[in-house]
Amino acid sequence: MNRKGRLHLENQYMKLAIDLAKQTVGQTSPNPVVGAVIVKNHEIIGMGAHLKAGEPHAERHALEMAKRNAVGATMYVTLEPCSHHGRTPPCADAVIASGISKVVIASMDPNPKVAGNGIEKLRQAKIEVEVGVMKEEADQLNRVFFHYIRTGTPYVTLKTASSIDGKIATTSGESKWITGEAARLDVHELRYEHDAILVGVETVLKDDPLLTTRLNDGGKSPIRIVLDRQLRIPVQAKMLHDNEAKTWIMTTNRASLDKITQIENKNVKVFVLKNESLAIKELLQVIGKEQVTSLLVEGGGTVNDSFLRAGKFQRLVKYLAPVIIGGASAASSFSGEGIQLLKDAPRLALLSIDKLGQDLKLIYEKKEE
Amino acid sequence: MNRKGRLHLENQYMKLAIDLAKQTVGQTSPNPVVGAVIVKNHEIIGMGAHLKAGEPHAERHALEMAKRNAVGATMYVTLEPCSHHGRTPPCADAVIASGISKVVIASMDPNPKVAGNGIEKLRQAKIEVEVGVMKEEADQLNRVFFHYIRTGTPYVTLKTASSIDGKIATTSGESKWITGEAARLDVHELRYEHDAILVGVETVLKDDPLLTTRLNDGGKSPIRIVLDRQLRIPVQAKMLHDNEAKTWIMTTNRASLDKITQIENKNVKVFVLKNESLAIKELLQVIGKEQVTSLLVEGGGTVNDSFLRAGKFQRLVKYLAPVIIGGASAASSFSGEGIQLLKDAPRLALLSIDKLGQDLKLIYEKKEE
Repeated sequence: MNRKGRLHLENQYMKLAIDLAKQTVGQTSPNPVVGAVIVKNHEIIGMGAHLKAGEPHAERHALEMAKRNAVGATMYVTLEPCSHHGRTPPCADAVIASGISKVVIASMDPNPKVAGNGIEKLRQAKIEVEVGVMKEEADQLNRVFFHYIRTGTPYVTLKTASSIDGKIATTSGESKWITGEAARLDVHELRYEHDAILVGVETVLKDDPLLTTRLNDGGKSPIRIVLDRQLRIPVQAKMLHDNEAKTWIMTTNRASLDKITQIENKNVKVFVLKNESLAIKELLQVIGKEQVTSLLVEGGGTVNDSFLRAGKFQRLVKYLAPVIIGGASAASSFSGEGIQLLKDAPRLALLSIDKLGQDLKLIYEKKEE
Repeated sequence: MNRKGRLHLENQYMKLAIDLAKQTVGQTSPNPVVGAVIVKNHEIIGMGAHLKAGEPHAERHALEMAKRNAVGATMYVTLEPCSHHGRTPPCADAVIASGISKVVIASMDPNPKVAGNGIEKLRQAKIEVEVGVMKEEADQLNRVFFHYIRTGTPYVTLKTASSIDGKIATTSGESKWITGEAARLDVHELRYEHDAILVGVETVLKDDPLLTTRLNDGGKSPIRIVLDRQLRIPVQAKMLHDNEAKTWIMTTNRASLDKITQIENKNVKVFVLKNESLAIKELLQVIGKEQVTSLLVEGGGTVNDSFLRAGKFQRLVKYLAPVIIGGASAASSFSGEGIQLLKDAPRLALLSIDKLGQDLKLIYEKKEE
């Protein structure tokens, strides 16, 4: 087969491996999503994806399907096989033991300390290794995991829904609903895909929300995190009682010990941060240590402003409803101080546009610092 | 030929007629854009478009090209041929005289008093007439003209350019530039296509703009209209001196006669409206009488708010830059009172999305009342 034909097939198998991985977004945290396909004589003899942390990796599932037929076959895998003993033994060893003769890899391991070790191990066992096939797509799929491994802090997505003119409520405070049903349902998909969701205490005081994932066929709810400098959250707030998901309160030394005890009695974790202004940087480090790899920020304007000014977000998901609200005093998705000079305002890249009912869903990505 | 094949060809010729008309948008006001194609034995024997008010209609140009060959041919025309004596004699008469045997029409005449008269005249002369082929596309092309004929007031387009969060400046007042070059050039296309452009006096006081059309290959500038209740415009404002386009000032009884005289001496027309709050309804009636068929509103927030609350606009062109500015006090594209209740906020229909450089251009249309 000529070079071009071979490339075409490689992309076809890798695309399948990526598709397998894509289906598991939201269920593998804190692990990456990974897909693997094993091919021999133009036939697929094994397929697999990593389903859940602690369970077998994608390569294992695919090898299990191929069994002895793996001898002399080619494996397409979206991420470099691991070479270290974690909760499961190293996949590189299993690939070598199977008799696979070639491995095609999309992304390298993002951890600089071990990147290339799996590849090296395979090559030492005389297995042919090709790296970088459909790398961009595979990297994009694991952007959350890669960011987390690289920084130790979660990948942050800001979500806002507004009118065309950027308003999230009328001057009289009416906000239900600006976007349509399809957009509102999509927010629950977003929640499902994240480890944690964050709001300011103002939102709790105003709406007393549950912040759970409500999809037609279930789906886990993210950890609910409330920014609450003075611990003003009412003890009877719904999310302190419903047991639908964990709730964490982020407060400072300004909180009273009494109130902390009351809240902790509800089986809710209270984190007392050092920085009295609840600096976003410290917050992200603290929840990163708790293995939160992805965080969905669902506003209020003041909370959004804190993330904006700290430059601590990677993505913006914007739902744009085809309505004009106007009003100088009507609330916008970002309030607070904002950015003073245009040169300091973060320039984003538009990744996708979708139509959800009558609304637009725009996904923007911030360039990594 | 079977019915389906015939329909296909009809659409092909009508599409050409529509394309001819489309090229002349912006140059035919106060007349509609019209294209015509004459076909005989599967061959195009005549094509034409109306180029400028006072000059021959599209049908005339096409008949001029076809000459005696028109006998027994079919004419495709985007708008019902006129039946009355205007600046040029009725086209229906010319079509009859030419020996054309069939006329296919997209849109009916929008003027209810004469709609169908042209068709009736053709039918009485034993010409076969088919109406409504590609009507939607043709109606869309003449939406400005149709609106003007129906209401006697211009078709109003609001233009705003903002950050993703709806801001048109930072809290420090910086606004140059939020959108990129391609979007800013596109605004000059918009200006070219309109009879008039409108700003508030605040914009003149702040920016002293020219508001002219600046395209690479020329193009007429629209009439510049300034809303100026107390006639605060400085006598030295650039647009009162440059003679690049007409300038009209809309004021009220609160203006001083002295200042009116000073301005009129600059060869600038001052309209004193009855309504002291410069009601948009009266304004549109006044400029409609002056044959302004289309108006581009280039904000400020207060002016946009007036049009929003009056419900007096048909279209919104929104340029959305991929940047977040934030700031509770940063200016939005609509300021003033805004809409109090969501049920009163105008719901629009998204007509098109285009990418201009890094920016999005969104065109929304308001349903006609």
